[in-house]
Amino acid sequence: MRVYNFAAGPATLPVEVLEQARAELTDWDGSGMSVMEVSHRGKPFIGLAEQAEADLRELLAVPANYRVLFLQGGASAQFSAIPLNLAAADGSVDYVNTGAWSKKAIGEARRLVARVNVIADEAASKYTTVPAREALRPTAGAAYLHYTPNETIGGVEFPYVPDSGSVPLVADMSSTILSRPLDVARFGLIYAGAQKNIGPAGLVVVIVREDLIGHARAGTPALYDYKAMADEGSMLNTPPTFAWYLAGLTFKWLKAQGGLKVIGARNEAKAQLLYQAIDASGFYANPVAVNCRSWMNVPFTLADARLDPVFLAEARAAGLTNLEGHRSVGGMRASIYNAMPLAGVQALVQFMQEFQGRHG
Amino acid sequence: MRVYNFAAGPATLPVEVLEQARAELTDWDGSGMSVMEVSHRGKPFIGLAEQAEADLRELLAVPANYRVLFLQGGASAQFSAIPLNLAAADGSVDYVNTGAWSKKAIGEARRLVARVNVIADEAASKYTTVPAREALRPTAGAAYLHYTPNETIGGVEFPYVPDSGSVPLVADMSSTILSRPLDVARFGLIYAGAQKNIGPAGLVVVIVREDLIGHARAGTPALYDYKAMADEGSMLNTPPTFAWYLAGLTFKWLKAQGGLKVIGARNEAKAQLLYQAIDASGFYANPVAVNCRSWMNVPFTLADARLDPVFLAEARAAGLTNLEGHRSVGGMRASIYNAMPLAGVQALVQFMQEFQGRHG
Repeated sequence: MRVYNFAAGPATLPVEVLEQARAELTDWDGSGMSVMEVSHRGKPFIGLAEQAEADLRELLAVPANYRVLFLQGGASAQFSAIPLNLAAADGSVDYVNTGAWSKKAIGEARRLVARVNVIADEAASKYTTVPAREALRPTAGAAYLHYTPNETIGGVEFPYVPDSGSVPLVADMSSTILSRPLDVARFGLIYAGAQKNIGPAGLVVVIVREDLIGHARAGTPALYDYKAMADEGSMLNTPPTFAWYLAGLTFKWLKAQGGLKVIGARNEAKAQLLYQAIDASGFYANPVAVNCRSWMNVPFTLADARLDPVFLAEARAAGLTNLEGHRSVGGMRASIYNAMPLAGVQALVQFMQEFQGRHG
Repeated sequence: MRVYNFAAGPATLPVEVLEQARAELTDWDGSGMSVMEVSHRGKPFIGLAEQAEADLRELLAVPANYRVLFLQGGASAQFSAIPLNLAAADGSVDYVNTGAWSKKAIGEARRLVARVNVIADEAASKYTTVPAREALRPTAGAAYLHYTPNETIGGVEFPYVPDSGSVPLVADMSSTILSRPLDVARFGLIYAGAQKNIGPAGLVVVIVREDLIGHARAGTPALYDYKAMADEGSMLNTPPTFAWYLAGLTFKWLKAQGGLKVIGARNEAKAQLLYQAIDASGFYANPVAVNCRSWMNVPFTLADARLDPVFLAEARAAGLTNLEGHRSVGGMRASIYNAMPLAGVQALVQFMQEFQGRHG
């Protein structure tokens, strides 16, 4: 009995991926061992790891001059690794603040770089929109420009890729990677914690242009040094093998769905269905500017917040789980990543309409 | 069809643990979700996480003034985190070199601390023994004394816990933790990558005395700061939830076996059976001094190294896998962690005797 799970991350995975993992959990590929139990240095796992990277490269059409790293520590580790690898301690870096995850990245950068320039901050809108394209002007001499294409908590997504000129563009794509086609060549570095659109928690994927590798400052922990990791195929130490395996299954699943164009169209349709239901209701509301509403994370409120616990309890009883908004903001949030089928969003919309009928 | 898997890590897991994980992989605890898909902030996962810590504390009788952290990055991340948290950049630290993993810890410390004192180095014995107990005298002013109780590659294990006086004792217990009872109070900090005796790769357990927390130097990445992690119950960022879950199942399994006294007696019996077979054979040899032979990792050579590939191929055909020695040393190695049953060691010994009969 599976439910529709709208958690923001760790999030629902494709049921086909879980079923394959289950089928071979104690005997992977006829080895008589779980994939968790085999050496990361052995040919079978190396083959798996290389195939996962090849499939990800194919899905995102990653140019040849980019390295793909499979690391530990999640996106939060990259909040530190990016300044340690790309900027000097007395250097200057640019950040855009569009909400909670931007703020975390900025906070860690401030501990590690002398000048953190917040070149745009959407506080005035209460983080319900993104800066105008022309407002994003990199600071002269900045080592990079960091932004958060999709804010998981606020549900705000950039409808464009900023133009940072010769300053490398760095993006925390944790909650939007693989949701649609992407022009990787526009970026210096992309990173994404796995636990939304890639696989389980405990893995972060970094896609980084080669010329940005090899400049880690002295005192950077070895596992945070992109060059040390790239030189060893992300196996300077033992990688999180099971997470890598599940990521590989997810990439295969995405290819079997038809790739990112098909997935993107499906995600847009799912999001539009939900936003239209919210906007048409007169009972539910989403505060985000229409042109930058997230396809992945849809926060919404009820006309009467006292009904929130009733909504959540009845939703749970209807097989729709984890609809609580983030603890920092309250309300509701439906995360509808790649693995959430259209049927799940349809079931949510139907439930919302019935709930309104009973309580509205 | 399961094999007996003698891999050094990632290593075999208790089959009962894998079978439980498989049974509930798509529907954990009646939730309709995999444990991989639930929020780490939700009550069900918090309950799981707290129970895992409680079970580990019970197994090791961890004193109340120690914190237990569940982190990412494996033991290699701790090679950096330990100096960053416990020593000043211009400080002094002591290390004991008993083999490959000691060397890695020393190498990373040298990048992060001005004075790394190698107070004992067993190079003269080719790392087949450990220093005499009385030879281990901490340097005045050292921030800590680090050693590797069990060398996974060399198969050398300390038969005693060093007396470091008032200098905190720090131990990489990756390949020996939970193999027998331990007096945690002798240590300032214990760390262990999970992928041998705890669970899958992607998790490291740190047990650290409270007074050693809160002294991370400026510029330490947030996820490497013990205080930041301890304050958030190891959830400053999203933890590797599935690895934590499997660790919890393994702790429950250890308790069901009767705890560490029972496990320790079983491990000693397994090791003695194998070493006796090697010593009595006149065909197989183990180079390690008898008083410090590892209970967990048993390297051995054949009288004629040209038979190595034949041995490995025939062993594999007999359902005994991953007996290759580490690529840096060659020969054979049987890792016989907690999850390797006595029957597996018996099968290996029988195979070794038959192989000698055919080829000796």
